[in-house]
Amino acid sequence: MTQAFSQTPALPATHPLMLDDAERSTAESALIQGYRGQVGVRRPVWFMRQAGRSLPEYRKLREGTTMLESCLIPEMASEITLQPVRRHDVDAAIFFSDIVIPLKLAGIGVEIQPGVGPVLDAPIRSAEDVDKLPELTDDMFEPITEAVKLTVAELGSRPLIGFAGAPYTVAAYMVEGRPSRDHLGPRTMMHNDPKAWDRLMAWTAEASGRFLRAQIMAGASAAQLFDSWAGSLSRTNYETKVMPYSKQAISHISDLTGPTGIPLVHFGTGTSEILDLIRDTGASVVGVDYRLRLDEVNRRLANTPGPDGRTTVPLQGNIDPALLSAQWDVLEAHVRDVIAQGAEAPGHVLNLGHGVPPTTDPTVLTRVVELIHSIDY
Amino acid sequence: MTQAFSQTPALPATHPLMLDDAERSTAESALIQGYRGQVGVRRPVWFMRQAGRSLPEYRKLREGTTMLESCLIPEMASEITLQPVRRHDVDAAIFFSDIVIPLKLAGIGVEIQPGVGPVLDAPIRSAEDVDKLPELTDDMFEPITEAVKLTVAELGSRPLIGFAGAPYTVAAYMVEGRPSRDHLGPRTMMHNDPKAWDRLMAWTAEASGRFLRAQIMAGASAAQLFDSWAGSLSRTNYETKVMPYSKQAISHISDLTGPTGIPLVHFGTGTSEILDLIRDTGASVVGVDYRLRLDEVNRRLANTPGPDGRTTVPLQGNIDPALLSAQWDVLEAHVRDVIAQGAEAPGHVLNLGHGVPPTTDPTVLTRVVELIHSIDY
Repeated sequence: MTQAFSQTPALPATHPLMLDDAERSTAESALIQGYRGQVGVRRPVWFMRQAGRSLPEYRKLREGTTMLESCLIPEMASEITLQPVRRHDVDAAIFFSDIVIPLKLAGIGVEIQPGVGPVLDAPIRSAEDVDKLPELTDDMFEPITEAVKLTVAELGSRPLIGFAGAPYTVAAYMVEGRPSRDHLGPRTMMHNDPKAWDRLMAWTAEASGRFLRAQIMAGASAAQLFDSWAGSLSRTNYETKVMPYSKQAISHISDLTGPTGIPLVHFGTGTSEILDLIRDTGASVVGVDYRLRLDEVNRRLANTPGPDGRTTVPLQGNIDPALLSAQWDVLEAHVRDVIAQGAEAPGHVLNLGHGVPPTTDPTVLTRVVELIHSIDY
Repeated sequence: MTQAFSQTPALPATHPLMLDDAERSTAESALIQGYRGQVGVRRPVWFMRQAGRSLPEYRKLREGTTMLESCLIPEMASEITLQPVRRHDVDAAIFFSDIVIPLKLAGIGVEIQPGVGPVLDAPIRSAEDVDKLPELTDDMFEPITEAVKLTVAELGSRPLIGFAGAPYTVAAYMVEGRPSRDHLGPRTMMHNDPKAWDRLMAWTAEASGRFLRAQIMAGASAAQLFDSWAGSLSRTNYETKVMPYSKQAISHISDLTGPTGIPLVHFGTGTSEILDLIRDTGASVVGVDYRLRLDEVNRRLANTPGPDGRTTVPLQGNIDPALLSAQWDVLEAHVRDVIAQGAEAPGHVLNLGHGVPPTTDPTVLTRVVELIHSIDY
């Protein structure tokens, strides 16, 4: 098979990636170059969950506003998205949102309970529950579109990364009704009621795909799909019960991706057995957690060509968040090690191997960015 | 290197494994034969967490008694251990206890909070905290010894499996002070304060080792070390910061193990990258979670000989607990598939790939045992 990507992405000429204006175009940014396997102006770095609880300015701004409310007030979501860029000089903003936001926008009763996570009023347990899920429309993403527009206007040539949960991780919350360790509910349903599972996953795939598309069309220059719980599955279950729907989500933006279009990062934790499948959903960049060395990730991808003939791809990751609270010399040595391990890949954007822990000292993150930018590229 | 096991285990002649009395000896039991890679009277099966919340007789007996109290009342711990054997006809009892029991017996303030898990009065965060840990003695295991004796007297030729948490998983609870998803505390400490980590892990290794030894000397015919959180580590971190202490724990019973002695099962979840290391701690059987196929586990072990020259070993596992609440035909097909996948290993004891979920219908477990025993062996 030949290259599956479209060569001329269907992005509007006013999109930051398409602009012919050095001050506003994101095409030459360190991040986009890194995602495209090119060496840009500096070594790119950003942090998953860089916007949020580790920042005092975030905690202050959020006072009196619930988590999901803050995602849906465009000015606030935009400001929160921008805070870590100002503070840390990271090479990208990641849109501040939550994986259950598409559910909320569709009218499903869901809240983020502090210290718990997303809790649904009514978990989805049966085919009947799935059939009652609301229809998804593009209109519902209006507050998202507005927040993205406000954000990219501020960011100039620094790219915004669009954010969405992958269908399995979203479905896991919907079936359990809350966070769980073992995800037994969705893992039972996929075998026990394959038709209900198919309809639920088709719905979450559409929700994730439309959510990403709305952000890109409003100005996001890259996108990342988060499949936090993919590592709870066997390879066979991932391949047959999850991967088709992740592809389906990505199909909503496939006319926008490709070598000159939107880079798409696909991230999960505990994915060492399914790295090639993560790539073969249509991702252009594989995000890796802290458990597996990047040189080993690169080797495995090289040895398992996909149906489109692709082998290695640019990687993103994988500084261990546990080391953010270690002494500086321990952390610095680790960051240098991650850079060395990523050198074999055809592109490497530095990030954590999981989200910023809420207790992280933000000055440490700033120092990590400075270190990464100071290292010869 | 040649066989590391002692050939004549230092078990008392009155130990159930050493008895020359068909009605009381466990040596010819299906479980011990399976663990030794021999085909016994029937296909052996037991379930992790078979004793406990899934059984109404357990919930009734425990009424008004806290979890840790129930572990330390010998008659109650013994009765709880025996309940699933009577009900399900499983091929082994697993000693009913908790991984924090050695801490409790040593005088550390710890309770199991319902719906949360183990919570310590004072988490262990520094070298000073570690230095204040109490001394471990054999006397402290008296209630355990008594409970095991009561249990094996009832079990006759059916073996009791001794139970202990592995040093890392125990240390993770001690440092966090409670269950956590990412185990950031212990994972920071191992890099940031290696001396404190060494002393903490040496302490937990001694606690786990003595705990197992007490159970074996009182009559347990096999032992299982549970390293539930081992999968949260990179291979390098496991190998350098955890494995030496798991070996140290096992060294407390190495004179009791070996081809004619106590089989030692070593189990963890998410261990696909460290299967050989799990084996090379000195385990005779590798317990596998539901994520990786047993034929693939066997292949990986075959390809990575240990320093003692061993390659494949008998396996235990790995029915997906999520399928216990599926329709019977789905579950039956899965059980048959697990049996087929385990056929290549030099021994296979059926089990779940993780503990029995508390909501499991116990009649399903009984039916799974009947199915496994009915399949040609």
